[in-house]
Amino acid sequence: MQAPSILSPSVSARAKAIRTGAGWAPNESISFIYGFPAPECLPNEAIAGASARALKTHGEWALQYGGDPGLANVLIKKLARDQKIMCTRENLMITAGSSQAIANICELMLDPGDVVLSEAPTFLGTARMMRNLGVEIEPVPLDDDGVRVDQLEASLIRLRTAGKKPKLFYVIPTFQNPTGVTTTLARRQRIVELAHEFDFAILEDDAYHDLRFTEERLPPLYVLDNGVRTFYTGTFSKILAPGLRLGWMVAHPDLIARISALKTEGGASPYSLHTGLEYCGPDGADLDANIARLREIYKRRCELMQDALTEFMPADVGWTKPKGGFFVWLTLPPNIDVTEMIASVRARGVDYLPGNACFFDGSGKNNIRLAFSYAAEDSLAEGIRIIAGEIRARC
Amino acid sequence: MQAPSILSPSVSARAKAIRTGAGWAPNESISFIYGFPAPECLPNEAIAGASARALKTHGEWALQYGGDPGLANVLIKKLARDQKIMCTRENLMITAGSSQAIANICELMLDPGDVVLSEAPTFLGTARMMRNLGVEIEPVPLDDDGVRVDQLEASLIRLRTAGKKPKLFYVIPTFQNPTGVTTTLARRQRIVELAHEFDFAILEDDAYHDLRFTEERLPPLYVLDNGVRTFYTGTFSKILAPGLRLGWMVAHPDLIARISALKTEGGASPYSLHTGLEYCGPDGADLDANIARLREIYKRRCELMQDALTEFMPADVGWTKPKGGFFVWLTLPPNIDVTEMIASVRARGVDYLPGNACFFDGSGKNNIRLAFSYAAEDSLAEGIRIIAGEIRARC
Repeated sequence: MQAPSILSPSVSARAKAIRTGAGWAPNESISFIYGFPAPECLPNEAIAGASARALKTHGEWALQYGGDPGLANVLIKKLARDQKIMCTRENLMITAGSSQAIANICELMLDPGDVVLSEAPTFLGTARMMRNLGVEIEPVPLDDDGVRVDQLEASLIRLRTAGKKPKLFYVIPTFQNPTGVTTTLARRQRIVELAHEFDFAILEDDAYHDLRFTEERLPPLYVLDNGVRTFYTGTFSKILAPGLRLGWMVAHPDLIARISALKTEGGASPYSLHTGLEYCGPDGADLDANIARLREIYKRRCELMQDALTEFMPADVGWTKPKGGFFVWLTLPPNIDVTEMIASVRARGVDYLPGNACFFDGSGKNNIRLAFSYAAEDSLAEGIRIIAGEIRARC
Repeated sequence: MQAPSILSPSVSARAKAIRTGAGWAPNESISFIYGFPAPECLPNEAIAGASARALKTHGEWALQYGGDPGLANVLIKKLARDQKIMCTRENLMITAGSSQAIANICELMLDPGDVVLSEAPTFLGTARMMRNLGVEIEPVPLDDDGVRVDQLEASLIRLRTAGKKPKLFYVIPTFQNPTGVTTTLARRQRIVELAHEFDFAILEDDAYHDLRFTEERLPPLYVLDNGVRTFYTGTFSKILAPGLRLGWMVAHPDLIARISALKTEGGASPYSLHTGLEYCGPDGADLDANIARLREIYKRRCELMQDALTEFMPADVGWTKPKGGFFVWLTLPPNIDVTEMIASVRARGVDYLPGNACFFDGSGKNNIRLAFSYAAEDSLAEGIRIIAGEIRARC
């Protein structure tokens, strides 16, 4: 087939700037690369029952055009009880996964050339989205206590001096992706203060909030900010099933109304919404029970990985100690380039995400993101042993 | 809650231009307003079975992050056999409904200020999307033989004289929404000629293709164009169930690859994809049987509505005679404003879509779109009788 003349002269300026990427398939025997839920965490039988009930009791509406049959009410109760986020249907929007929520918020807020602050490293899906939107990213580093708010402030002052006003700060304060660290309460308060002082919005991605391994629960930025300038996003992908594509955002009602007006792609699938509601039940009890189960499973997985790291890694490799979520972040000696180690590790049946995939500027080549969420539980130690062996060979 | 300062100074230029709209719910007793499938056309039991099989046989993948388990192969066979569109996985993309396909294509192709040609009247979802994108719309009228290609050519010449080059022509050549008319073969050929001569792309929305009431099947523009400059979109919403949010586009592989790279919101729900595949079966036999059933149902509904129009409408009301699809388009005497008639018709338990909702410039106030697809079959005549009574009172 001949390449059409419409391609090169006529696509939008943004499309022209983007190269195509290759597909992927998780086919490794011990896969640490993807932030996927463990297969045993996906409630296949309960979902089959929920869909059957939805199709029987909601009739045509489970398969028709339309919206949410009441999952928002379940979420409103849950957010009030667990996250201490008080919201109504006016400031909650259910979306096709939190990636759609984040895309919608970026679409609402950002024009090409705008300046956006972001944790670095960060979630690569959002990083890619922002690159596609043609915004300028100002990276903010992290340490074991989360966002470096001193560095955030320094960036804000430098940008102001340069006549630049950032619109948005993208932050994952709890069990961060990719590092697993949690931003302390004092730092959260400082982020909100800075947002008011420098007049920027906060995009708080709280995908891992419920998957905590301890009883500690820090207030979201949305709560500290009283919901004035924070967009809060969450997802059923980590606490129920990614395949349903169900997520949400909470924001000021005026902002939700504007996003509603902008939306062109439609929201969550009505079939997923009805299935999700029937799964949760009106009081959300089955979702609560599932979350309690997942917390145990991921806590055990994280401990197994931590034990293996302690046992097998050379002394000059450091790693984070997450209190929740899916990920551990490794820092190797600076002379090791983990992108060059991928092939030999993969040849031994293991994969991981090279740290540079999570940065905007190609740094992080001596970092590795390890997901303890997906690989078989009894393979976690073996996978770490193999990676450690490859690192030792390069130390 | 106080309105945030971020709203008015900082949202994107595009977002600022758009007002928020109110929600809706179809609660009329005889509803002609929405292009919804009839409740009896939605195969609830078969979908329950398909989901149960998907969750059992595909294991975690029915609920995991990921993509299509093989629905593309079913579509490739169907498109080759029925639409005579030859494609491979390289030039087919499954999307979250055809509205996502159309949104993705617009995003790929269009920058604010670009000129787009569109049938007028047209599908209001796409009309809204294009308004949101800030493009300039050049409307092209229709008659009983479909797109007025003479008017299309006149527009193209006028635009060229004005130094403007349209990028895209949005067209629904088969059982058009809202008019129900079909563009003839000769006119289809002329559209493709003009696309080559004036170097624009074609966005062919073929949502109703399979729902034909006769054996006649005209070749899509995509076929006449050999797929060189046509984006072809279709949907499972009309032939299976809207609630699954499954649609597709076919285009040159380079364009599909670029859209892939641009995508931020994710595609169809994996749960819907697995359910859809299990419903269709690898050879698509159950989908074929369903389409055959729907053709009979909608044909009968269309005939009932035509009969009622003939029986009840005043002599100076005209309407289209669709050979497929969901809609009949009424033209009333020019002194009647159908927007002013909505309330009294609704008070009698009936609703319809005023024609102006389908135009870009507010014209069409003496037109009505009637969907014969959704209201109860035995209420169609009564609904027409009521509307006709209101029209008579104004003649």
